[in-house]
Amino acid sequence: MTFHYPNGQAYLVHDDKKKSKKQLNKKKVSYSNRGMSLEDDLTRTNEYYLLKNRAVIHKKPIPIQVVNVDYPRRSAAKITEAYYKKASTTDYNGVYRGRYIDFEAKETRNKTSFPLKNFHEHQIKHMNACFEHGGICFVVIRFSSINRVFLLNFPQLKNWWQQQFDENGKKSIPIKALIKEGYEIKYSLAPRLPYLDLIDTLYSFK
Amino acid sequence: MTFHYPNGQAYLVHDDKKKSKKQLNKKKVSYSNRGMSLEDDLTRTNEYYLLKNRAVIHKKPIPIQVVNVDYPRRSAAKITEAYYKKASTTDYNGVYRGRYIDFEAKETRNKTSFPLKNFHEHQIKHMNACFEHGGICFVVIRFSSINRVFLLNFPQLKNWWQQQFDENGKKSIPIKALIKEGYEIKYSLAPRLPYLDLIDTLYSFK
Repeated sequence: MTFHYPNGQAYLVHDDKKKSKKQLNKKKVSYSNRGMSLEDDLTRTNEYYLLKNRAVIHKKPIPIQVVNVDYPRRSAAKITEAYYKKASTTDYNGVYRGRYIDFEAKETRNKTSFPLKNFHEHQIKHMNACFEHGGICFVVIRFSSINRVFLLNFPQLKNWWQQQFDENGKKSIPIKALIKEGYEIKYSLAPRLPYLDLIDTLYSFK
Repeated sequence: MTFHYPNGQAYLVHDDKKKSKKQLNKKKVSYSNRGMSLEDDLTRTNEYYLLKNRAVIHKKPIPIQVVNVDYPRRSAAKITEAYYKKASTTDYNGVYRGRYIDFEAKETRNKTSFPLKNFHEHQIKHMNACFEHGGICFVVIRFSSINRVFLLNFPQLKNWWQQQFDENGKKSIPIKALIKEGYEIKYSLAPRLPYLDLIDTLYSFK
């Protein structure tokens, strides 16, 4: 199944032609592709914003614990053993209109709700601290099966996060709630995901 | 040679007892140790600021290009081939008093001046963009041989960076200039390097 942007351009699925038996593990492949496309869209969006001098926002590198490094040549240290570490913060941060901006991007294959288990306690804590210090904090959620992307500001996310621990608390955010409490980010040509326009509305910037 | 904090505590030199022939390559060892101690001091300082709810500032992970990953078990992906990538931004960023804060930390073994070649063009460009967008941008420079640490605000760093391309331009910043145009960060017990106090002075925060 191929998704298309409103302009007809298809999503690139990078490893279509190279599927090994291992990669055919359905869950693993789907996670990988899901990660690629929203991340790719946001990276290109941020590059556009940087080019247009609108904001300076970067994705942080993935935290990796290096265990062993070979030095075959002085100029090219080769890491031969390393492991992925759990991120202690969010994926994206930077500066916009002098303000600190910090957000996390997540995808789901679900069509009607977003499972809260996709967030980690430490990410919520980090966003809470940033928000309390005056930062602009939010999440970008993509429903990959229906290709709709939403922005939810941190205070609303916090409410949803906290209610899950109540008796009969919901374990996911219904898409209807995202439509009502959040903002849908509509794909465009450039930038692909114009999320800063929604931030302008949300924070009443001119 | 062992350095001591004003409180008498010695710097930890982690690989003293494990020096292989390769590690005895003088330049390599010195770079490694230099990196460890200023980074360690700043990490502990940032942890202190986070604990005291004064600011949310983290070091970004080192960017690594992963080439090959083994999956011996589902839960522990092992990276078997990877390479260090050049950082496109600075090492530290976060939020302080609602403002975006962004800085780079560097060390030198020199005693009288800091060589400008320690900065990369793209780091200066990144800091320039952040500063223009209203961020708080500066560098922390440690002279490891004499154990003195200075904070230099971005506008002053930019002047020094640019003059090096002039005829007879200096290729390093004399320590005298750092004393005059910057601020010395005096070691303390907690936080180890109280650089935010200097930011308060510099940006006239109460």
